[in-house]
Amino acid sequence: MINVRTDLAVEAREIYKEQFKREADGVVVVEEEKDDIKITTVNVKNEEGARMIGKVMGTYITIDIPEFTHYDGEIMDNVAHVLAESLKKLIDIEHTKTALVVGLGNWNVTPDALGPQVVEKIMVTRHLKSVMPDAIDDSVRPVCALAPGVLGITGIETGEVIKGVVDRIKPSIVVCIDALASRNTRRVNRTIQIGNTGISPGAGVGNKRMEISEKTLGIPVIAIGVPTVVDAATIVSDAMDLVLDEMINQASSGGEFYNMLKSIDKNEKGQLIRTLLNPHVGDLMVTPKEVDIVIDSVSKIISSGLNLALQPNLDMEEITKFMN
Amino acid sequence: MINVRTDLAVEAREIYKEQFKREADGVVVVEEEKDDIKITTVNVKNEEGARMIGKVMGTYITIDIPEFTHYDGEIMDNVAHVLAESLKKLIDIEHTKTALVVGLGNWNVTPDALGPQVVEKIMVTRHLKSVMPDAIDDSVRPVCALAPGVLGITGIETGEVIKGVVDRIKPSIVVCIDALASRNTRRVNRTIQIGNTGISPGAGVGNKRMEISEKTLGIPVIAIGVPTVVDAATIVSDAMDLVLDEMINQASSGGEFYNMLKSIDKNEKGQLIRTLLNPHVGDLMVTPKEVDIVIDSVSKIISSGLNLALQPNLDMEEITKFMN
Amino acid sequence: MINVRTDLAVEAREIYKEQFKREADGVVVVEEEKDDIKITTVNVKNEEGARMIGKVMGTYITIDIPEFTHYDGEIMDNVAHVLAESLKKLIDIEHTKTALVVGLGNWNVTPDALGPQVVEKIMVTRHLKSVMPDAIDDSVRPVCALAPGVLGITGIETGEVIKGVVDRIKPSIVVCIDALASRNTRRVNRTIQIGNTGISPGAGVGNKRMEISEKTLGIPVIAIGVPTVVDAATIVSDAMDLVLDEMINQASSGGEFYNMLKSIDKNEKGQLIRTLLNPHVGDLMVTPKEVDIVIDSVSKIISSGLNLALQPNLDMEEITKFMN
Amino acid sequence: MINVRTDLAVEAREIYKEQFKREADGVVVVEEEKDDIKITTVNVKNEEGARMIGKVMGTYITIDIPEFTHYDGEIMDNVAHVLAESLKKLIDIEHTKTALVVGLGNWNVTPDALGPQVVEKIMVTRHLKSVMPDAIDDSVRPVCALAPGVLGITGIETGEVIKGVVDRIKPSIVVCIDALASRNTRRVNRTIQIGNTGISPGAGVGNKRMEISEKTLGIPVIAIGVPTVVDAATIVSDAMDLVLDEMINQASSGGEFYNMLKSIDKNEKGQLIRTLLNPHVGDLMVTPKEVDIVIDSVSKIISSGLNLALQPNLDMEEITKFMN
Repeated sequence: MINVRTDLAVEAREIYKEQFKREADGVVVVEEEKDDIKITTVNVKNEEGARMIGKVMGTYITIDIPEFTHYDGEIMDNVAHVLAESLKKLIDIEHTKTALVVGLGNWNVTPDALGPQVVEKIMVTRHLKSVMPDAIDDSVRPVCALAPGVLGITGIETGEVIKGVVDRIKPSIVVCIDALASRNTRRVNRTIQIGNTGISPGAGVGNKRMEISEKTLGIPVIAIGVPTVVDAATIVSDAMDLVLDEMINQASSGGEFYNMLKSIDKNEKGQLIRTLLNPHVGDLMVTPKEVDIVIDSVSKIISSGLNLALQPNLDMEEITKFMN
Repeated sequence: MINVRTDLAVEAREIYKEQFKREADGVVVVEEEKDDIKITTVNVKNEEGARMIGKVMGTYITIDIPEFTHYDGEIMDNVAHVLAESLKKLIDIEHTKTALVVGLGNWNVTPDALGPQVVEKIMVTRHLKSVMPDAIDDSVRPVCALAPGVLGITGIETGEVIKGVVDRIKPSIVVCIDALASRNTRRVNRTIQIGNTGISPGAGVGNKRMEISEKTLGIPVIAIGVPTVVDAATIVSDAMDLVLDEMINQASSGGEFYNMLKSIDKNEKGQLIRTLLNPHVGDLMVTPKEVDIVIDSVSKIISSGLNLALQPNLDMEEITKFMN
Repeated sequence: MINVRTDLAVEAREIYKEQFKREADGVVVVEEEKDDIKITTVNVKNEEGARMIGKVMGTYITIDIPEFTHYDGEIMDNVAHVLAESLKKLIDIEHTKTALVVGLGNWNVTPDALGPQVVEKIMVTRHLKSVMPDAIDDSVRPVCALAPGVLGITGIETGEVIKGVVDRIKPSIVVCIDALASRNTRRVNRTIQIGNTGISPGAGVGNKRMEISEKTLGIPVIAIGVPTVVDAATIVSDAMDLVLDEMINQASSGGEFYNMLKSIDKNEKGQLIRTLLNPHVGDLMVTPKEVDIVIDSVSKIISSGLNLALQPNLDMEEITKFMN
Repeated sequence: MINVRTDLAVEAREIYKEQFKREADGVVVVEEEKDDIKITTVNVKNEEGARMIGKVMGTYITIDIPEFTHYDGEIMDNVAHVLAESLKKLIDIEHTKTALVVGLGNWNVTPDALGPQVVEKIMVTRHLKSVMPDAIDDSVRPVCALAPGVLGITGIETGEVIKGVVDRIKPSIVVCIDALASRNTRRVNRTIQIGNTGISPGAGVGNKRMEISEKTLGIPVIAIGVPTVVDAATIVSDAMDLVLDEMINQASSGGEFYNMLKSIDKNEKGQLIRTLLNPHVGDLMVTPKEVDIVIDSVSKIISSGLNLALQPNLDMEEITKFMN
């Protein structure tokens, strides 16, 4: 059982594997690659596996995208297609059933604005049947989309807004998009996680918030998450560990030095982190300098992939034409 | 009975009065003035009055603000206070009851973005009791706020989103803010209408949309509306009327010329309007050049007035401090 | 000689032709059509022609784009290519010479923000030779780009900023992009005018501003202009004329009625316009409701066309790749 | 002589003092405090001092603002007044002479957008004398303002744009505002540095750019800088040092362990940093989560202080009224 919290199943699994030198029981992992895009499926099969890697039972598909994706329209299209295929595996309802797309996060904070930005690019069709029935035929799925804002802005829990709207308009599936935190700068804006286990907004921060899941909404909930920041405290902690590990490697096992290094305990490290980041601990994030541009690019990829997955009878060209 | 559609009760009443040279039966009007700010209360007392001026039974308070308001912080504050007093007359619930503020309109179209911009400046407090109970005492009303977007963006009727959220979080009152169309350039961004009869989004455009009112939501609905545009077709029509009126004035009553002018019928005028505005009829609006700046200013006035009205135990300084 | 001021040569020529039933002396007009796109070249050959239609001597190419261009990516590309071909006729310098692209207008006022929005999408290359010489080869023209803002924002005349920068960095050509006013709603966001006679910012408003032209800068100046608004006063005036014309048509020539209509003079009409638009005369504009979206689309078309024209050795795909 | 690069004179001086346990020769430091605001004046008196702390000869005034400034309008006003007083010491020209305010940085990257955001809030008056001479009297200084963009956006060096405009409009002084990097999270958005030695854009990044100083422009150049980010590499490096220092403290001087810790050399640490931040080294920054809000607040403080300093005959109320 690992004691590190992470939004990404693939990170949790890595940490477990590194620590215990084997896959956790009840966790099945399949890796594929297509067009330089790595697809890792982590299946948490039972409660034992869930407890081991700290992730709810269900399927987590992680797509790792090539380094220069955000600067190459062709690669972006490839990733969108791979994403669409992965989504289709989890979106298992007829193409005539209504989908509600929900963009979580705060539109005023760039790295948290991914969800709202995706929502802006979703092909919204639910209202067209009544407004202009001739323009739209039965091959098109009714899709609606909402960015409910965050608690600090609206005074309403995200889950409450979604539950209220779902109870009212009765869609058959909800797809949530959310910005996550990673433990690793390499994953920032480079990893897309899809899962069928729902979402707990602000879960990492220790806040008790209403879960957004099949349990609370009564319909399947697909979550798409992308790590867009690393907490500064995480990076600092990792930096310290790296130095310690390096020295442990150099020290002879069992010697005085080795033992001392091993004994530097958590509290001490926490104190050092507070020394360094004070008065901002927990409030500082690490992002790429060009974060505005990259979030724009990621939101294009995800909306393209999601539009393709939700509209199995349309191709990318038809969707683009509709969106303009 | 008048045959002109307008969002403003005060305009409907003016048109009636001009046409019939008297107040409509069942319509009671009171006019006041304070700090150069004119306050007109139109009470539509019965169904007869409602039919005559084409406005639902209820109270409509109209505030006409001085010409240079948007360029003078002091006048803006005065207007906000007058607005607060008028709102308090219609918001008739205890200060401990929850209010939901709803900003209607499309945030991507500047003159329609008034509602969403007001929502951004509302003092949101509903969540604070649980998140930081010590920071907030019982003198503060729980307020939450939402900008539900428009049908074309979300695929969901505005009324459906509001109904869903109201049913879920059960506020005691809803206050809607909306941008309106005026028939008169003089009123653009200069008139604030408050009413207790609810709202029909897109009512003017002939679309059948779900009403947002006490009837549909089950709780009182206060509507704040500001005309931010004039339809180009309205201005063109008025221009033509003005020329015709001018010539009628000059012609001797009963003469050939006079009769001819009188006979220019509606269809003919409609045809001329289409000639002029084609291919954009119904799609063109008239706004001040500095519309972005003015909408910002109007949204500040309305949010200030509304914050004061919703928080009767706080003064403007305390609210400003909270907002920063 | 016409007495109407318009930014568009093609409008001036139309007004002249309608009034005098013939082309003005010294004005040569050629009309072509390609992919539903109409290209009209107005050559003002001598001072006589310039005086007649109120436009400086030079070449004005006007591109009229199909109605639904802004909603169809393919048509947008076609227009960009036609624009590029027209621009190449006027940009008559080697592909190794530096071009400075200048986006005129106020980025805070949507219909005036066209120029700054185009500048954001220009393929800027001038600095790359020194920063990363290997990434860029001799087939690429050095291009730089600037949005100098407007007098009210900077306190500096646009012409002064441009002259200062031109004197310092010595480009071989300047291309200015500006939003214009049209007399006609049909032309709004549907007409692109290219000219080689430079620009007088705010020329229409009677302000004396520094001209931006080969005379003042010492190098060729190409101007790209798109009408994005119609003044409300123009529309109102046209509406009145339309009514009068209609009645004149109906009246028997020479009768009392006919003569009276003919005698409604300018001052009177001006007075009526002021009555209608007061207190906002000259300050109100007519725009499409979806102006933000359309300006975005127009800026994409113009930047595409301009990038193609400035980089004759690159195709659209290579430019798009560079821009991402 | 210190071997650490920092944009802040006060940091350079601290590092020197810590390393050598004394003030550098030729560096005179005066500290004051007012309303909880700390003002530190570092005078680099001669070349020796300049070499020691790695800062050009001249005066650097640093204002450290209280922790909750950005959430309290009253403290913001206090800081603005202190800033104004400090600026007045360096802006030593008659109130009738023209000032050019230049906002450096990239408006598309939030923590770099400080300069452009300040420029938007500057009281621009230079054009008013000619446009509306009656509205403005001789007590008001002519001020103009420009945000020239960055090399990657315009293809023109910032220094070239400024030099071109200065040569053209001949102001008597230039005031530049720029976002800086700090070595210390405590200083982020909490320290304002004013200096009279000009600016080298991108100096820290090893790029050779045209200096913006009295030497290159021929007139005094005042620079206002605020650290808005810390490089992620700096934080990681500091984290490692902290761990090492802590262990050195614990180890007995002269022992094997102590010597080993001391021997971890720079290259090794650099390698560890690259391991941690790869592939993003040099590209990651650390900012507060609410960076958009804080930059807005800082830009208000600086523009207020600068407006007061540039207009010695006006008070804050008159300036606010003018700005609206």
